[in-house]
Amino acid sequence: MLTYNLHNKEKSTLYELLYTNIKNDILDGKITANEKLPSKRSLALHLKISIITVENAYTQLLSEGYIYSIEKKGYYACELQKTPLQKPLKSQIKNHIHPLERKKDEFTIDFKSNAVPAEKFPFSVWSKLMREVLSERGSQLLQPMPFNGAEQLRTAIADHLYHFRGMHVLPDQILVGAGTEYLYHLLIQLLGREHVYALENPGYSKISKIYAANDVSFESIHLDSYGLSVQELKQSKANVIHISPSHHFPTGIITPMKRRQEILNWANQDGNRYIIEDDYDSEFRFHGKPIQTLQSIDTNEKVIYINTFSKTIAPTIRISYMVLPFHLMEKFREEMGFYSCTVSSFEQYTLASFIEKGYFERHINRMRNFYKSQRDCLLEKIKKSPFNKKVTVMEENSGLHFILDVNTNMSDEELIQQAHNNGINISCLSDYYYGCKKDLQLNNLQHKLVINYSCIDYKVMEHVHRLLSIL
Amino acid sequence: MLTYNLHNKEKSTLYELLYTNIKNDILDGKITANEKLPSKRSLALHLKISIITVENAYTQLLSEGYIYSIEKKGYYACELQKTPLQKPLKSQIKNHIHPLERKKDEFTIDFKSNAVPAEKFPFSVWSKLMREVLSERGSQLLQPMPFNGAEQLRTAIADHLYHFRGMHVLPDQILVGAGTEYLYHLLIQLLGREHVYALENPGYSKISKIYAANDVSFESIHLDSYGLSVQELKQSKANVIHISPSHHFPTGIITPMKRRQEILNWANQDGNRYIIEDDYDSEFRFHGKPIQTLQSIDTNEKVIYINTFSKTIAPTIRISYMVLPFHLMEKFREEMGFYSCTVSSFEQYTLASFIEKGYFERHINRMRNFYKSQRDCLLEKIKKSPFNKKVTVMEENSGLHFILDVNTNMSDEELIQQAHNNGINISCLSDYYYGCKKDLQLNNLQHKLVINYSCIDYKVMEHVHRLLSIL
Repeated sequence: MLTYNLHNKEKSTLYELLYTNIKNDILDGKITANEKLPSKRSLALHLKISIITVENAYTQLLSEGYIYSIEKKGYYACELQKTPLQKPLKSQIKNHIHPLERKKDEFTIDFKSNAVPAEKFPFSVWSKLMREVLSERGSQLLQPMPFNGAEQLRTAIADHLYHFRGMHVLPDQILVGAGTEYLYHLLIQLLGREHVYALENPGYSKISKIYAANDVSFESIHLDSYGLSVQELKQSKANVIHISPSHHFPTGIITPMKRRQEILNWANQDGNRYIIEDDYDSEFRFHGKPIQTLQSIDTNEKVIYINTFSKTIAPTIRISYMVLPFHLMEKFREEMGFYSCTVSSFEQYTLASFIEKGYFERHINRMRNFYKSQRDCLLEKIKKSPFNKKVTVMEENSGLHFILDVNTNMSDEELIQQAHNNGINISCLSDYYYGCKKDLQLNNLQHKLVINYSCIDYKVMEHVHRLLSIL
Repeated sequence: MLTYNLHNKEKSTLYELLYTNIKNDILDGKITANEKLPSKRSLALHLKISIITVENAYTQLLSEGYIYSIEKKGYYACELQKTPLQKPLKSQIKNHIHPLERKKDEFTIDFKSNAVPAEKFPFSVWSKLMREVLSERGSQLLQPMPFNGAEQLRTAIADHLYHFRGMHVLPDQILVGAGTEYLYHLLIQLLGREHVYALENPGYSKISKIYAANDVSFESIHLDSYGLSVQELKQSKANVIHISPSHHFPTGIITPMKRRQEILNWANQDGNRYIIEDDYDSEFRFHGKPIQTLQSIDTNEKVIYINTFSKTIAPTIRISYMVLPFHLMEKFREEMGFYSCTVSSFEQYTLASFIEKGYFERHINRMRNFYKSQRDCLLEKIKKSPFNKKVTVMEENSGLHFILDVNTNMSDEELIQQAHNNGINISCLSDYYYGCKKDLQLNNLQHKLVINYSCIDYKVMEHVHRLLSIL
């Protein structure tokens, strides 16, 4: 007869212990295939436990397929393969995991990070709105959400785009998703994986990584001083271009109207051609109003406009959106409308309220002023440095970075290494360039440091002097 | 001289009005290409506005590329293409958008919906935890998040899996994402688009739609009464299988141990083979403990375990996770670690706290009891109906649905139409079947109604009698 020590070592119930013991004996071969198990009654008597405990254990073994029953005869062990009983324990497998990347705080100063300064976010307001959303909407928050996001949020975004960007957009043209990376995935599915996509060179490397990870062919098109080279674009096989005409990262180029018209003309020449307008940091232009979007001057349903709140509110708030031309939204609804919206309803309604009540506009204005004062302070330090002759500041009117053109004989690799040796983390324009290094000089991309200043403390800014001294 | 009526119709500033007027004149051809603009001073005098206003307008036009300047000479209009000035207004474009799908409340009773009952969610607890997270973590919430999710949440999930599913999993093996649909996207990228994927037939149609939208080849493999047919699997070209061995939707089949071993053996025969174990509603088994996972008996790093909180907490809380074998998490970190986590940190920490403090376990237990009482009530109504001889209840021990096997000569289409005519929304097992209709009979999939009862009111349950009467 099966004999087990059913002392409760863990929090398991008696029936679980019995189940586990019998299961292990079957897997281990101690109970052989098709061997008859004792009747519930006799096993209960033998182990001094209740029949119901044995019954529960047998039922579980039955439903997981360790034993089978023959009516009026009893229970039998299934014919199973011998299996190691237990997976390795936590302590044994811990060394499988590699440590995470090198910590950033090894650097005294980090000009490479474009993190958002945490303390600037109006937590108390956000928290208040969340509480309001919870109490006002209650169980409504659990109702299914349209695939393209909460109508209230889409309406708030459409109004914001009208007042802030002069864009005439209907809420039904907007699709909300958990971050721009996710929206790129959706766009690739919507527009088609068979197309060749054109990306800006230099450009934000994450974008090319996403296209690569999605097995999409793409070409890198050079920028001249007006933005994407239309000549090179025409020679390429690209059907879809992914650009940031209002403020290109990292060069800071604003594509002028004439080039925009040329790009739209290119798109209008073929039904399959589209323009993805990535407008991710247009809110932080320091002088004048934000640059008009390509979407606003597109009369042919060619432009898909993308923006995100991760950059304006906080990177850990994963809410982005795109504005689709009518026919593409229809296509999305038909072919991909089965996708659930990836942003939780709590946060969608909180953000909608944050925009509607004017907090978003105020927050952007506050951040713009803050970034401007950051920039001004840093420019002042550079100006006052005895080494200021070595550098020229470029593209300082927008966004969270500017370019420092360095008069030096060092290579970009040497510049960066020299900075690293002095505890300064920094990147060069050439880091954002795809293609062979000899083209760098040709395209005038060398010796240009990218200075991100969004998150740098005033005290730490003194170190810019240290940076200049080593160039 | 340019003359404009600068009366402030909207909330625009003077400089914006001037900018818009000049811009429109250039696009309209009223100001011709290369035409010289008046000097700032003379235009200011002429329009009786300040020079600074003109300067601001010119600066904006300059930065957007509508005009160019020649030093010491002045400003000139750029050579631009004539463009229609304004996009159609909201009122004119409204009819582009089609109405959303047919509303569900046209039906008196909806056996097709598997919505979660909203009022069961512990809002007050969730809201309290959110407030705690906001006040305790503060600006820490804005700090960058690991690509695989907050460590606190991954630790809470690992502990939950250990206690609830008997799984030995490290937090570093877990990757958190905004919904299982998004995780499928990531898995396709991780495992490779070149593989053939095998899906269960019948199965949840959304899964095949997602593979199709990702341009992945897949084959539908039939289920026999033990789950996925290994014989058919071996004859297929599939390398990756996507299955729900612990509770298959919609058949309710629990794959027994012997079949699980066969499936693992299949996977072990080739380095490229993997098993995606979709465990999305294993929490709602009414008798005994949850069925052991395939992941738990996999000793060869072949099983990827996926589960979601959208089903257990609320569909609008988009938090799902997967457990990757060590070597796949390493691959993910290297090749796809640049992806940001798609779930906001607020909700990750709130959920972590919800799990840690035992609320999640209590909520699941409460929901399990609720669903059980729903099921019991519905089964009772069926039993009491004079038409109960027409039907046999199947697979009623788990999840949020059971199967009603109907003794009828009607086709499934007729059954559904008959129900629709009587205000009842319902689906058949055959709706989840891919392939030609003649195989339905062969696979014994006809005349089986899928009864989802998660969200049905007790009063409405009386209508099940109406359903039986028309069969």
